[in-house]
Amino acid sequence: MDKSAVALLSGGLDSVTAAAVVAGQGYRLYALTVSYGQRHSREIDSARVLADWLGVIRHEVIELPISELLKSTLTENESDVRVGRSAIGKGIPPTYVPARNTILLSLALAWSESLGADAIVIGANSIDYSGYPDCRPEFLEIFQDLISVATKMGVEGHSIRLLAPLIAMSKADIVRKAVELSVPIDKTWSCYGGGEKPCGVCESCLLRQRGFQSAGIRDPTTEG
Amino acid sequence: MDKSAVALLSGGLDSVTAAAVVAGQGYRLYALTVSYGQRHSREIDSARVLADWLGVIRHEVIELPISELLKSTLTENESDVRVGRSAIGKGIPPTYVPARNTILLSLALAWSESLGADAIVIGANSIDYSGYPDCRPEFLEIFQDLISVATKMGVEGHSIRLLAPLIAMSKADIVRKAVELSVPIDKTWSCYGGGEKPCGVCESCLLRQRGFQSAGIRDPTTEG
Repeated sequence: MDKSAVALLSGGLDSVTAAAVVAGQGYRLYALTVSYGQRHSREIDSARVLADWLGVIRHEVIELPISELLKSTLTENESDVRVGRSAIGKGIPPTYVPARNTILLSLALAWSESLGADAIVIGANSIDYSGYPDCRPEFLEIFQDLISVATKMGVEGHSIRLLAPLIAMSKADIVRKAVELSVPIDKTWSCYGGGEKPCGVCESCLLRQRGFQSAGIRDPTTEG
Repeated sequence: MDKSAVALLSGGLDSVTAAAVVAGQGYRLYALTVSYGQRHSREIDSARVLADWLGVIRHEVIELPISELLKSTLTENESDVRVGRSAIGKGIPPTYVPARNTILLSLALAWSESLGADAIVIGANSIDYSGYPDCRPEFLEIFQDLISVATKMGVEGHSIRLLAPLIAMSKADIVRKAVELSVPIDKTWSCYGGGEKPCGVCESCLLRQRGFQSAGIRDPTTEG
């Protein structure tokens, strides 16, 4: 068995845990990190450390100069990533980045086909989640269909598989899975801000807190 | 009526003709040109001239530093873009760029949604074509389905339309349509090479020659 996969690695907890699950299934990994004009580079630094930990064959970090094209509080410095706790899970939040996962998966698809890889790994999950439409199973299912018609490999009957091992997991499940796989949780960065410590008030921090609390596990990044 | 569309504009004949068709239907246009490590910048220069001619509201040229991820003779300097005439239409040629149209459409989708645009325009056609899987109607149909689940606008019932007005046209039809719409054909650049004149031997030149010959029209770029 010599399967390989391209893992989208953001620097957060979900993507490294998804990659670790797939590595445990026998896949050799390549890691792809895309900087698309987020407000800070902190999570790119985390991605480099996590790619090392995963032992990937190669880690590519791509700077995508598209912040001019995107309207989102994640890519606009002036606006605020804070949302009220009560707003989570109610509609699509202002941190939604148009077509983000479609772009990320397209780039992963291009690299996967160039490598002749068997699969793409994404950390998308849709239980305790942001409400982003492109994190839902129905999106991933259509992208899988797209792969089979869009690519040479797909047309030739060797369609690249889209793996989303966390898709049906709660945030607490993901935290427990990360602990089980010895993911270096202290090296992950989920916060939408770029401070020394996670801000504790952005949507991503709130979802993460909720996951650790439900799992009964302490988050090492918020201590000390 | 105040419809708007983001047109993918490569600098070649097809994309500007597709954009001109849609402009004629009353759409105000934005133009998006993506440089993904092609062998030459000649077609980017053409795209700027054609965007001016189209009178677009805004023209964005994005440098996508992904040639490292791509395996194609179009992005690898060492290899040769020449194919034999007899090879055209027989299988997927070596100039196929993995997931190219998926990437281009993803970027156009992100910008369209940020703008609140109604449509995306692509010059894809699949009659006298290269054999690229991501130029076929079945690819475009699945991408349209993807738009409706991947985006906030789609989920909210205002899905962006994917327009491919040339999809069922032969190359001769496209040449005739370009003439009818007064497209400045002499400013277009289809050749995969980057010389002063089109090379006349690459796949793209051969398809273009065939189109002009069938239409009984002289190609101004090959004269003089």
